[in-house]
Amino acid sequence: MSEGKTRRPKAETPKGFRDYFGTEVTERKAMLDAIAGVYHRYGFDALETSAVETVEALGKFLPDVDRPNEGVFAWRDEDEAWMALRYDLTAPLARVAAQYRNDLPSPYRRYAMGPVWRNEKPGPGRFRQFYQCDADTVGTASVAADAEICAMLSDALEVVGIPRGDYVVKVNNRKVLNGVMEVAGVLDPSDPTRFEAERGIVLRAIDKIDRLGDAGVRALLGEGRKDESGDFTKGAGLSLEQAEVVMGFVSAKRDSGAETVARLRELVGASVLGAEGVNELETIATLLDAGGYGADRIVLDPGVVRGLGYYTGPVFEAELTFEILDEKGRKRQFGSVAGGGRYDDLVKRFTGQAVPATGVSIGVDRLLAALHAKGRVAADTTGPVVVTVMDRDRMADYMAMVADLRQAGIRAEVYLGNPKNFGNQLKYADKRQSPVAVIQGSDEAARGVVVLKDLILGAKIAENATLEEWKDRPAQLEVARADLVQAVRKMLAQ
Amino acid sequence: MSEGKTRRPKAETPKGFRDYFGTEVTERKAMLDAIAGVYHRYGFDALETSAVETVEALGKFLPDVDRPNEGVFAWRDEDEAWMALRYDLTAPLARVAAQYRNDLPSPYRRYAMGPVWRNEKPGPGRFRQFYQCDADTVGTASVAADAEICAMLSDALEVVGIPRGDYVVKVNNRKVLNGVMEVAGVLDPSDPTRFEAERGIVLRAIDKIDRLGDAGVRALLGEGRKDESGDFTKGAGLSLEQAEVVMGFVSAKRDSGAETVARLRELVGASVLGAEGVNELETIATLLDAGGYGADRIVLDPGVVRGLGYYTGPVFEAELTFEILDEKGRKRQFGSVAGGGRYDDLVKRFTGQAVPATGVSIGVDRLLAALHAKGRVAADTTGPVVVTVMDRDRMADYMAMVADLRQAGIRAEVYLGNPKNFGNQLKYADKRQSPVAVIQGSDEAARGVVVLKDLILGAKIAENATLEEWKDRPAQLEVARADLVQAVRKMLAQ
Repeated sequence: MSEGKTRRPKAETPKGFRDYFGTEVTERKAMLDAIAGVYHRYGFDALETSAVETVEALGKFLPDVDRPNEGVFAWRDEDEAWMALRYDLTAPLARVAAQYRNDLPSPYRRYAMGPVWRNEKPGPGRFRQFYQCDADTVGTASVAADAEICAMLSDALEVVGIPRGDYVVKVNNRKVLNGVMEVAGVLDPSDPTRFEAERGIVLRAIDKIDRLGDAGVRALLGEGRKDESGDFTKGAGLSLEQAEVVMGFVSAKRDSGAETVARLRELVGASVLGAEGVNELETIATLLDAGGYGADRIVLDPGVVRGLGYYTGPVFEAELTFEILDEKGRKRQFGSVAGGGRYDDLVKRFTGQAVPATGVSIGVDRLLAALHAKGRVAADTTGPVVVTVMDRDRMADYMAMVADLRQAGIRAEVYLGNPKNFGNQLKYADKRQSPVAVIQGSDEAARGVVVLKDLILGAKIAENATLEEWKDRPAQLEVARADLVQAVRKMLAQ
Repeated sequence: MSEGKTRRPKAETPKGFRDYFGTEVTERKAMLDAIAGVYHRYGFDALETSAVETVEALGKFLPDVDRPNEGVFAWRDEDEAWMALRYDLTAPLARVAAQYRNDLPSPYRRYAMGPVWRNEKPGPGRFRQFYQCDADTVGTASVAADAEICAMLSDALEVVGIPRGDYVVKVNNRKVLNGVMEVAGVLDPSDPTRFEAERGIVLRAIDKIDRLGDAGVRALLGEGRKDESGDFTKGAGLSLEQAEVVMGFVSAKRDSGAETVARLRELVGASVLGAEGVNELETIATLLDAGGYGADRIVLDPGVVRGLGYYTGPVFEAELTFEILDEKGRKRQFGSVAGGGRYDDLVKRFTGQAVPATGVSIGVDRLLAALHAKGRVAADTTGPVVVTVMDRDRMADYMAMVADLRQAGIRAEVYLGNPKNFGNQLKYADKRQSPVAVIQGSDEAARGVVVLKDLILGAKIAENATLEEWKDRPAQLEVARADLVQAVRKMLAQ
């Protein structure tokens, strides 16, 4: 036979991907289920599109190259059309909203959860497949939709185990920034194409405020900035006064929403668009207050600048405010776990008609990491009760025991490996994080009893050398076979 | 602006794929959750691998072609290696079992649920992405593992809503068939390569028994068979006596498991392999009986021939026994919803070492269709309570109402479309399958009340012309704003 000559395939997870085992799967699932419950209660309907979209619908095809650009995994189908794995859940929503526009309710509230794929260089903690968890409302320009998304985001964080006080949902508005730019003289409402380059620099500059700090951003608003490597980034060319107006926006947050609104009104001056944005923020705050979502949960904060370049109206971000230790052991705030805002042009790509939309995306992996940091993970990590096999010929007896346990809702399994070495069976139970091992040799069988071994207690005893504090609790117990379920249940409850 | 000239992308689901809306998503999820609960109770651990595998690991690359063969969606990564979407959940399991063999418990019980992709010609009800729901035990040759899978499959069917008596799990064994082939003279234990072609024809022939009937299979076992189009399929060339032995196997089922075992013992005669297979079936029946899984749920049935060519030992199939009407209005049994068996060579591809494994795959879409046919679908299909907007300026009041309802766990939304036309709001509520509409105009607001409209009752009244039977139940109700939650809850409970 030539089998020996065949090169064996490598058993490897593809580069940039990963495998999720046991509680890694169920913990994420429990979190997503809880969030889905909130989305559902808010009237959002589930939508599950397939992983595959036409590259045309995704809009990631560059006309001047033969292959779709970097960023997506793509291939040609049998008709030579380019297909790709979705890179987010918003692009498929835009396709669905256009395709089924005559059948869907309008406004259409939908949520979606599932993996997305990015053909990017993988890095530590950065994978080519990861989960997203989105909720969007399509087809309404009302800022009540934005307010609702903020309230829902707040509820979602609390339902998965982030207590009130440990998070804040911050709300800002792109239109206010545009109004500020008008005042600063880099936006001319009568000719929106003027100063486009300058505004682009302003947007990118304030987006970097966390990294560059005030001085760095001011440099970029003015002549430009030389970084540590000596590279020079050209600035927007704003005067000191103009830059002051923009920086005033970023730091416009005051103690109360009303004061912040008042400060923003000063900043946008006579700008019509700016006033519209300030009014929207004020309305959002009023609507949230009416629903009981006060400043302990949701605040107006013009300092939220992430995504201002992408979104067209209200922008929101959820930050966790408790401290964790970073990789260098320094304390820092956990930071952002969700973000979103209003975007009005995605459906228009397909239909030509503007369809206003707003939505939020929760960072599934970051939120799960936060829950781990807080010890608030919901999934059950207990292994199964393991029924050991002392006598291979009495497998039917052992199968009957697990059947009884499972019938009673207790997670249980019989050892299915080679039963010869009993030590291996206990090692197996240990690897399975089993709380209880059930043992019945021929002697016990003859007497109609089983032995229960409390493995959690055993591990504790092994940990602290002294048996003293456990002496009242037996690590091993003999019970009648008929009492198996009851005795295991009692041991599990301890 | 050149926008008008740009060709708009088509808003289309890619060919062979589909979108799932609302309850289509949540019903499937509820079913999979219930099954996962059973798998978990049996000690199976969740595993989620990524959608992408190397083509090498999937083993679908033909060495003589430049592109991976039909069947998978594949592309080259940045290192020119072929990558592909998984076409099932077993191939990734084999890769994982090989890759993590030193870390995983042995035996390793795992379940997996998720989409798989097939690059095949789509047809009615046949899609290029669909769900699978598998459980497998890797690393044990014990038929206790096979028995356990059968018991678990039985529990899984019952937990999703298929009552006992409406299904049967049938068990067969490839080794028995091999023993029968030995007796029939088409398998020579001392030279397994002899008669390979004949055995292939026998396997394919009995696999077609549902379609071709006894006579068709007998023709294929003998000289061959001419189909209706006139095409001739060469047969295995068995004599009448030899064919009789094979057909005896297919029809060996007797009233009790013990009788079936006795009949199979006759058929396999002196074949060592055949006797081994019969013993395995007998052991499986004994183990299942001990666990309380009798012939009302699981039976030995040598008539189960599907997959006998693929599997190496026990084979199982779950059939639903109730009747449904087929597309032509004829009564027929619902048929198979799950299948599996023992396969021992999948991990060996990677490591060179044989690793015995057994598992089952539930046909998610077929089982869901069965639950629909039985009216046993678990998901909540009720739409949200819709709070209508009579007065755009009082949006804060309406938001407070939905907040109250949601806080009380009631699914609710405020109408976010243009509120001008009240008829549109009621049409929207209808499209949303809303059970209750909440209405508060300025008059009601001044009096501190709201009006509740029972939309389910309204629909019923519209259905039967006579109001008579509903006359004691008001379709519309005025309640104090403070009693909103309580009154809605009462209306929903009716």
